[in-house]
Amino acid sequence: MRDDPTTRPQVTLAAGKHRRAEHGHPWIYSNEVVLDAAAKALPAGSLVTVRTAEGRSLGVATFNAHPLITCRVIARDWSLKIDRAFLAKRIERALGLRDRLFAEPYYRLIHAEADGLPGLIVDRYGTALVCQLNTAWASAMEAEILAALDAVLAPELIVLRNDSPARALEGLAGETRVAKGSLSGPLPVRENGANFLADLSEGQKTGWFFDQRPNRAFVAALAKGERVIDCYSFSGGFGIQAAVAGASEVTLVDRSEPALALAEQAAALNGVADRVKVARGEVFETLEKLAEAKERFGVVILDPPAFVKSKKDLGPGSRGYRKMVRLGAALVQKQGILLAASCSHNMPLELFAEAVRQGLDDAGRTGRILYTGGAGPDHPVHPALPESAYLKAQVLAID
Amino acid sequence: MRDDPTTRPQVTLAAGKHRRAEHGHPWIYSNEVVLDAAAKALPAGSLVTVRTAEGRSLGVATFNAHPLITCRVIARDWSLKIDRAFLAKRIERALGLRDRLFAEPYYRLIHAEADGLPGLIVDRYGTALVCQLNTAWASAMEAEILAALDAVLAPELIVLRNDSPARALEGLAGETRVAKGSLSGPLPVRENGANFLADLSEGQKTGWFFDQRPNRAFVAALAKGERVIDCYSFSGGFGIQAAVAGASEVTLVDRSEPALALAEQAAALNGVADRVKVARGEVFETLEKLAEAKERFGVVILDPPAFVKSKKDLGPGSRGYRKMVRLGAALVQKQGILLAASCSHNMPLELFAEAVRQGLDDAGRTGRILYTGGAGPDHPVHPALPESAYLKAQVLAID
Repeated sequence: MRDDPTTRPQVTLAAGKHRRAEHGHPWIYSNEVVLDAAAKALPAGSLVTVRTAEGRSLGVATFNAHPLITCRVIARDWSLKIDRAFLAKRIERALGLRDRLFAEPYYRLIHAEADGLPGLIVDRYGTALVCQLNTAWASAMEAEILAALDAVLAPELIVLRNDSPARALEGLAGETRVAKGSLSGPLPVRENGANFLADLSEGQKTGWFFDQRPNRAFVAALAKGERVIDCYSFSGGFGIQAAVAGASEVTLVDRSEPALALAEQAAALNGVADRVKVARGEVFETLEKLAEAKERFGVVILDPPAFVKSKKDLGPGSRGYRKMVRLGAALVQKQGILLAASCSHNMPLELFAEAVRQGLDDAGRTGRILYTGGAGPDHPVHPALPESAYLKAQVLAID
Repeated sequence: MRDDPTTRPQVTLAAGKHRRAEHGHPWIYSNEVVLDAAAKALPAGSLVTVRTAEGRSLGVATFNAHPLITCRVIARDWSLKIDRAFLAKRIERALGLRDRLFAEPYYRLIHAEADGLPGLIVDRYGTALVCQLNTAWASAMEAEILAALDAVLAPELIVLRNDSPARALEGLAGETRVAKGSLSGPLPVRENGANFLADLSEGQKTGWFFDQRPNRAFVAALAKGERVIDCYSFSGGFGIQAAVAGASEVTLVDRSEPALALAEQAAALNGVADRVKVARGEVFETLEKLAEAKERFGVVILDPPAFVKSKKDLGPGSRGYRKMVRLGAALVQKQGILLAASCSHNMPLELFAEAVRQGLDDAGRTGRILYTGGAGPDHPVHPALPESAYLKAQVLAID
């Protein structure tokens, strides 16, 4: 896909609909664009120059007539050519920031709009990259994006994990494949000084959740000498870091056998296998059984998958978080620590905090919030898209 | 003041007004209490047993008929005797938590309701304590509180800093005095590995703002090799930690001569006096002059006093933050870092983030939010009082 600013298609906004874009908002919605026959005929994923009704340029954007978000502004200077060199520059900027933030190359390298590349997610595992091309534009630019990543980082392995629900909104099919190199087993990850394994093969849904890094560090620092239970442990991020920090005993609860197998390997890699055990099962059920058995823990970690997948799930999802906290808080010993997290986009922090408060009260426990954290700084937030800060984690000291 | 649960005065709530207290909210407002002649006759600062209209006990609370917050629940078990031993237990619990959180004894030890002691603030500077008795109850309990602190910590020095605006709402006069030991010059503070000085003498408004600890650590980690400007520096918390972390040059801007004098002493203590300079003056004016002189900084820190002191200041206060960010962002060099903070209670995070976004746009700059932080964990938040989380800090990477 070649871009020439002087011949690039143009899209015009409806009268008066330019204010947000003019002040830096990267999204333009379908009801703000004049969707005439010419616009509708543009292929999904085209680059367009966006103009106000008066003809003033607002910049260059990606275009897709079908979803609610029709244009995503890439640069406010329409005369920039969006080519491989441009992509490489944006990647270099993102890389420079991560190099400044982290001592080791394990992080989210590109976080879509916040890094100036709409719909592109790239996670870095040392010499391997895992990409999500979540918009029609990113998907159409696949070859240029891969070439730019190659030019900047020369990775040995690139995996395309194009199976996110976001792609369906853009009219894109799901697929996972290796675009460069070959994948032979799990990849090493290092986080907060501990070693982990991430399985990027097609069968596995996700490799590693880099977003919880600061929250894992905060809880690990409180885990020394404590009995810890890590619920929805996945491959052990919270629990194994707690063990490395000196927890006396860590139980990982997850229903995924492959995730727990990776966690056991990671425990061995960190020399803490004797203090880490896995308990495969459903979390709610496991917590209820532990309560019946009068088990108590110094640190209880609750990091579930999204309970609120869409706005209509807000009621049941909130009740789910409340119940999770009730069951978890009941197991916290006196003066113990509880972490509760939500990665639900559609669950505002205020509502989540209220569900946590209610769950604590339902359990007949009291305490105080020590810490409210979000995703780490490799998941930056575009200032005009505060709602994209999806992760919330609260850590409480329980009486 | 002696407490006997069996003869303690009782206060009854209006019918149906018990729900929040029953679910753990520590505050009961004047319109929720039956303020009959007996209640009105209770001395401000009394302990009372709170009962529902049906006569069920909701716990023991402090009482003051005058302010909006009439009762502050101390414990849900009315039969507990609120005496020196009770106070000592709460202090021990708070101390245990801080000892777990911090390696050195410099922190907020008691954070009022969140630590189960309504209106009591205690900051710890090694062997010295600085107390604020912000409610009529805390003030009436002065002798018992001091004795309990003595029993738990045996401090060499206790300063009462009873000059907060909160006291006026409770009908209390302002005063600052030394309650134990003698104050001879500034006290040492250690934070994130750096040394500082806090002046607790009567003339100085505040000793040290412990709340910014995690935010100072986050910014310092990005300051290596950078030219830094720390606006509203007070005695140098942000700027000197940046210098210790390797900043090439740090300018501290504040209008207080004594605060800057302490900062210069702190710079010397940390061996970074050659890289730290002070510029006494008004921040807005200073930033405008630096912009005219085309100065640029790798890290710009904006940590002002509260611009929104009451809800009616929300408009002008928001515009103040917006202007501050516009002036500060203009000085950030390419790929530089901007920190903007607000300690205004009445400024919700969403509004502050919007003021930051607008200020950035006004300056013609773009960037991404790396981090949104609050006060450190020695300033815990009561789960039912999320609005008491007053501090907000955003760190952005600027293009």
